[in-house]
Amino acid sequence: MVSILQYINGEIKRLTLKELSQCVHSAEGMLWVDMENPLEAEEETLLVSVFDFHPLAIEDAQRGSDEEGHLPKVEDYGEYLFIIFNPVEVTAGTGTDELRGGFEIRTTQLSGFLSKRVLVTHHYSPLRSVTNAQQLLAKNPKALARGPDFLFHVIIDELVDNYTPILDHLDTLMDDMEREVFHEPTQETMVRILQMRRNITTLRRVAFYQREMLNRLSRGEFSLITRDEMLYYRNVYDHLVRMTDLTDSYRETVGGLLDAYLSVTSNKLSQVMKVLTIISTIFLPLSVITGYFGMNFAHLPGLESPVGVVLTTLSRLIVAGGMLWVFRRNKWL
Amino acid sequence: MVSILQYINGEIKRLTLKELSQCVHSAEGMLWVDMENPLEAEEETLLVSVFDFHPLAIEDAQRGSDEEGHLPKVEDYGEYLFIIFNPVEVTAGTGTDELRGGFEIRTTQLSGFLSKRVLVTHHYSPLRSVTNAQQLLAKNPKALARGPDFLFHVIIDELVDNYTPILDHLDTLMDDMEREVFHEPTQETMVRILQMRRNITTLRRVAFYQREMLNRLSRGEFSLITRDEMLYYRNVYDHLVRMTDLTDSYRETVGGLLDAYLSVTSNKLSQVMKVLTIISTIFLPLSVITGYFGMNFAHLPGLESPVGVVLTTLSRLIVAGGMLWVFRRNKWL
Amino acid sequence: MVSILQYINGEIKRLTLKELSQCVHSAEGMLWVDMENPLEAEEETLLVSVFDFHPLAIEDAQRGSDEEGHLPKVEDYGEYLFIIFNPVEVTAGTGTDELRGGFEIRTTQLSGFLSKRVLVTHHYSPLRSVTNAQQLLAKNPKALARGPDFLFHVIIDELVDNYTPILDHLDTLMDDMEREVFHEPTQETMVRILQMRRNITTLRRVAFYQREMLNRLSRGEFSLITRDEMLYYRNVYDHLVRMTDLTDSYRETVGGLLDAYLSVTSNKLSQVMKVLTIISTIFLPLSVITGYFGMNFAHLPGLESPVGVVLTTLSRLIVAGGMLWVFRRNKWL
Amino acid sequence: MVSILQYINGEIKRLTLKELSQCVHSAEGMLWVDMENPLEAEEETLLVSVFDFHPLAIEDAQRGSDEEGHLPKVEDYGEYLFIIFNPVEVTAGTGTDELRGGFEIRTTQLSGFLSKRVLVTHHYSPLRSVTNAQQLLAKNPKALARGPDFLFHVIIDELVDNYTPILDHLDTLMDDMEREVFHEPTQETMVRILQMRRNITTLRRVAFYQREMLNRLSRGEFSLITRDEMLYYRNVYDHLVRMTDLTDSYRETVGGLLDAYLSVTSNKLSQVMKVLTIISTIFLPLSVITGYFGMNFAHLPGLESPVGVVLTTLSRLIVAGGMLWVFRRNKWL
Amino acid sequence: MVSILQYINGEIKRLTLKELSQCVHSAEGMLWVDMENPLEAEEETLLVSVFDFHPLAIEDAQRGSDEEGHLPKVEDYGEYLFIIFNPVEVTAGTGTDELRGGFEIRTTQLSGFLSKRVLVTHHYSPLRSVTNAQQLLAKNPKALARGPDFLFHVIIDELVDNYTPILDHLDTLMDDMEREVFHEPTQETMVRILQMRRNITTLRRVAFYQREMLNRLSRGEFSLITRDEMLYYRNVYDHLVRMTDLTDSYRETVGGLLDAYLSVTSNKLSQVMKVLTIISTIFLPLSVITGYFGMNFAHLPGLESPVGVVLTTLSRLIVAGGMLWVFRRNKWL
Repeated sequence: MVSILQYINGEIKRLTLKELSQCVHSAEGMLWVDMENPLEAEEETLLVSVFDFHPLAIEDAQRGSDEEGHLPKVEDYGEYLFIIFNPVEVTAGTGTDELRGGFEIRTTQLSGFLSKRVLVTHHYSPLRSVTNAQQLLAKNPKALARGPDFLFHVIIDELVDNYTPILDHLDTLMDDMEREVFHEPTQETMVRILQMRRNITTLRRVAFYQREMLNRLSRGEFSLITRDEMLYYRNVYDHLVRMTDLTDSYRETVGGLLDAYLSVTSNKLSQVMKVLTIISTIFLPLSVITGYFGMNFAHLPGLESPVGVVLTTLSRLIVAGGMLWVFRRNKWL
Repeated sequence: MVSILQYINGEIKRLTLKELSQCVHSAEGMLWVDMENPLEAEEETLLVSVFDFHPLAIEDAQRGSDEEGHLPKVEDYGEYLFIIFNPVEVTAGTGTDELRGGFEIRTTQLSGFLSKRVLVTHHYSPLRSVTNAQQLLAKNPKALARGPDFLFHVIIDELVDNYTPILDHLDTLMDDMEREVFHEPTQETMVRILQMRRNITTLRRVAFYQREMLNRLSRGEFSLITRDEMLYYRNVYDHLVRMTDLTDSYRETVGGLLDAYLSVTSNKLSQVMKVLTIISTIFLPLSVITGYFGMNFAHLPGLESPVGVVLTTLSRLIVAGGMLWVFRRNKWL
Repeated sequence: MVSILQYINGEIKRLTLKELSQCVHSAEGMLWVDMENPLEAEEETLLVSVFDFHPLAIEDAQRGSDEEGHLPKVEDYGEYLFIIFNPVEVTAGTGTDELRGGFEIRTTQLSGFLSKRVLVTHHYSPLRSVTNAQQLLAKNPKALARGPDFLFHVIIDELVDNYTPILDHLDTLMDDMEREVFHEPTQETMVRILQMRRNITTLRRVAFYQREMLNRLSRGEFSLITRDEMLYYRNVYDHLVRMTDLTDSYRETVGGLLDAYLSVTSNKLSQVMKVLTIISTIFLPLSVITGYFGMNFAHLPGLESPVGVVLTTLSRLIVAGGMLWVFRRNKWL
Repeated sequence: MVSILQYINGEIKRLTLKELSQCVHSAEGMLWVDMENPLEAEEETLLVSVFDFHPLAIEDAQRGSDEEGHLPKVEDYGEYLFIIFNPVEVTAGTGTDELRGGFEIRTTQLSGFLSKRVLVTHHYSPLRSVTNAQQLLAKNPKALARGPDFLFHVIIDELVDNYTPILDHLDTLMDDMEREVFHEPTQETMVRILQMRRNITTLRRVAFYQREMLNRLSRGEFSLITRDEMLYYRNVYDHLVRMTDLTDSYRETVGGLLDAYLSVTSNKLSQVMKVLTIISTIFLPLSVITGYFGMNFAHLPGLESPVGVVLTTLSRLIVAGGMLWVFRRNKWL
Repeated sequence: MVSILQYINGEIKRLTLKELSQCVHSAEGMLWVDMENPLEAEEETLLVSVFDFHPLAIEDAQRGSDEEGHLPKVEDYGEYLFIIFNPVEVTAGTGTDELRGGFEIRTTQLSGFLSKRVLVTHHYSPLRSVTNAQQLLAKNPKALARGPDFLFHVIIDELVDNYTPILDHLDTLMDDMEREVFHEPTQETMVRILQMRRNITTLRRVAFYQREMLNRLSRGEFSLITRDEMLYYRNVYDHLVRMTDLTDSYRETVGGLLDAYLSVTSNKLSQVMKVLTIISTIFLPLSVITGYFGMNFAHLPGLESPVGVVLTTLSRLIVAGGMLWVFRRNKWL
């Protein structure tokens, strides 16, 4: 699906493909071409015929259909900048799972071609931030008048803002996990901790590469980004610094959770073993006393007297009680 | 709450908002505007109308109402520097908890706008160092005469000095924990160690970012900081180097505590198990001897003689004693 | 085996060694000399006599016969660039082994001498990407017209593309391993995890050195690489960035697998021990009850009555059942 | 205690404070003022009145009375360099403790003000290297003629040389610990290992900061250090490189000791448990055989024959011996 | 022992110390002075009187008699370069030990003074690469004609080549260790693993410092190394890159061995414990059955019938067999 918007004379006009090819070489107005999950023919027409982008850039853009997309980067082709950004998507697990961490973070790809008057965005999965930018233009056409660099900043700024709820969710999940680790750890817990670590690593990597890219965009390395817009890109950069910082601290927390899990489970098991062994240890001496009077000696003292039974029974209670008392005093129970 | 102080003709005058708007464009005197937990209207009037700061800087300042605030940074807007600093607050836990590590380190935000003649400080929670700076001015008006950069240095210098008692407290807590780890470790101990690690990480991060920022402020990168003041900023920088250094070594100590905890608890449990197993191991052979004479053989030797009982009883004592002696000699007990 | 291809007047001609020595000093056409597992005499003739390359470069190229070859590097000898690249080979294990990770990643060596008009490639093991480049030239002779730098890029681009199936295979293997770790871990599993870690380290190292090399090739450091080709080398660089990134995350995953393996196996064993100990713990008290009535006291109550047997049997069932119930309630079973 | 030495006309003269203030502004001779644990009044007079050093530098020098002193640094105040150095002191533990690692490494502070003609050293604890420098001057007055930078180098060179015996001592201690770990590890051992790690970390940090500082002093960054002296500072730098290198490798060794300790203790305990369990496992079957013939069946075969006793006793010995033999063959014992 | 070789008029002449002092200031020929374990008097004469080297350089050279020598470095004294290199020696252990890792890697010191016409090498232990260089000169006198920088390169190139057999030996040892770890791990194994780690660390450090030094020698930083020779030094640099790379990967392998050792030993022990516990668990219920019929109840059913014995014996076999079957089905055995 291709949507073409032109800003001219203070208004937004929706163009067809044909109109586009006519006006693309006139030096008037600003253009935004968004290609969402485009057909190959559309890609051929627009990227190759109409705009004549470099084959390597087009190839990189088409990597977006791969599982993870291309890593974020920015490349200066003279007439235009080619920028790859990695939006983040959460694939929610099902049912109760979702509540506890059974969700996966996936990256997709947004490619942008940014020239003086034209912005081409290219992506395979629908992106809310693109839709929002379109709505913004509908309300306020002048947003496009500030140039494609401003518009592109609007889109990626929102993409980065989308990380916040994900990070908050991760934070909540880790709090849940911590409680779980210290109260009812199962092997499931460990699977989830490892999965969480993987998710955080993914987030961190994406944030890291995008931070580096925005650093370059915001420090005046590219003449296509105007001085005024650089400040806005710096702003996005600041957000990404915060993200990487947070993911770093999450990473540490999740490492602590793993340590805690290993310690708590091994401790729990050992406690159970200890109690069981204490029970055994209490009954064994009783067994020996019992066995003593089961011996077939002709002259075992006390066998004949009725007090004997009572005394041995008592002695067994005393031995058992005494052991319990000693164990308790040593805080073994 | 907004407080506006003007230094003019060797005196400090407290201005109203109206007076401020009149004198802000005259080139006389120094101004310090402190906004503590300001109303939105006040922010609108002062930051936007009176001083006309950049919208992005204002937005960043308003992040101070978020949970953790914006990361420390300094930005040069030409006419003024925009600086974010993260004061550190300790949220004490309750009761006995506080004595043992149940406290959390939180960061807040202080934003400063620093121009040739004006310092605007903006923060949501009350800061002792700001109050102290106001008292300093009351006593010694000339402190403002040295310019907003000197005044701002006074404020952040004290913020950094506030870290010292926190670090000392952490040090004491870790000593307590060490004793606890080696003498009465519980699962609580582990929770506290992990929490301590988190606290130290927070401190370290804040100190690190602020150190980097002060490095930039003190090496002459910004023309708004005069050469003379640079030395003072360098001083604050030195303190922060010390802080990060200390937090690094605390981090290592706390890591050692975790290792020690895991080793000590597992060791303790194993010792208990060993003693219990030794008890079992001593009683089992006794059981076998007892059982031997419980067999119903017609011709078991010794059954008829009264010495038999005494001899088997003795043999049991000897076996038990012998085992104990062997175990002791091998240092198993 | 030496194959010599010349591009002249829009056609590809296959030359003999003699023809080569005649045309090498005429300034016409492009040349590609591929030496696959060459005889020493051929190396002598071509590298020393015909092209007169530096002895150190030749020596480095001949390192390719060593087990692991020389590390990737690029050296500027003025007239020509000397480039070493490390293709990666998978030595598949045998039988069932191969399905589970019993395969090893080995590096070989491809050396390239790159001058304005000549490309000499030198390698000991056959390389598919070289064969493919020859087929490409057969179909499209003009590919050589773009110069040796383009042709060399074609070869290494495919070498790098060959990493992708290996990485995918590693990914599948690690998924298998994860399943194995959590469902039927054996000591074999650990051997495999450690082997996998070694494989990943090898891959990572190779990718890392090649990335650095391509970074240098693609940023205009060498005048022999034309500006237009630099973009293509940048493309290969991008792929290698992705590779190192992936190997880094694999490394982390494999580290997680090791942690998981250690935890799961120790946990599994402890569970078995717990169940066994529970069985012992249930039977010991029964033993004591039984022994009680085995004592030879003359007046043990209940011995005479037939109900006695039933009652003690019942009491034993109740004790055993009660213990089981308590253990279950505490989630020990 | 303040000692003031002046080198003039080839001789060393000891000055009083009064004489100092008179000669300080004449451009003749070299001066060395050493302040060991000075009174506040002396500091006031000398640092402020006589030499007029910057308040921040004085403040930093006075930090030397704190527990750990200021971190090493060098600052250029134009007329003079301000240098902080951290001598290392060993606080020996008492009695047997000292032999085994119960000692702590503490840092103190030496501050130096270094101008063209004057060296002021300021420290709170007595330093042997200062005393030695004074004795050197007594013997060879010309040492001061080479300028304060040479003299200061003499002092810090010896401070750094003092590290060597400490490092050697640590080395011996670690050898002792290794023997202890593998032969009689106790919980004490772990405490000592952790303490050793802390000591090494302290040393490493100090050496690291001083190395960085000497790097700056020796590479011509400061015009007050003459080209000829730079070589000598480079020499001290080299020693510090060696120190940091050694501490790094000690750090690794001590980490290995910790791993070894954990493994050895857990192994030791498990061995004991194994032997104990083997004893139990041997006696239980005997118990069952005994019990068999304790059953009250009317027709238990063999009960009547005298051979029965012998046979069952034999069978018990065979069972016990057989089990022992199997356990040994499997190397369980 | 001092050997002095002069290359003049195409020939190598062996000079005495006297002849040396005469010809050292004439501008003819090349000189190589090798000092192997020299007397102090020889050092005095040559280094101080004849060549007048800087006292600091001489002092550093004399560090070669210390246990580990000085760390590698290169220093430019204008007229000459002073270079320290660390040859590596293997101190083989005795007997069977040597086969399994009981060997230690020690560093010694080779100091070189390199001027336009003179090379002075100074070392305390005999070095094969120096002897080889002397033999090379005997065969091919022109090798000295290329200047002292070429000759020095020949010596250190062979020193670096000597690392290869050591690394190969380490590789074999680690393979042996891996087999040992997985098949018959003892506490000895752990000692050896830790020792191996230390050896590798030593190698890595030496290789690292020498790599850095050769990087400086080969990139044209020193005018005494001619452009042509730089390539040869680059070659040595490449070898050292390979060494550090290998030692890095060995380090990782040895870390993996340690993890494996800890896991395998703890696993092995647990397996033994499991089998032992299973034996106990099988015999305890039998004990209870036996005890049941040992009770002295008057009316225990089956006591009188001869089938009773058979039935209970059978039931015991069934119980034991059933438990074994269950344990096997659960893969506990």
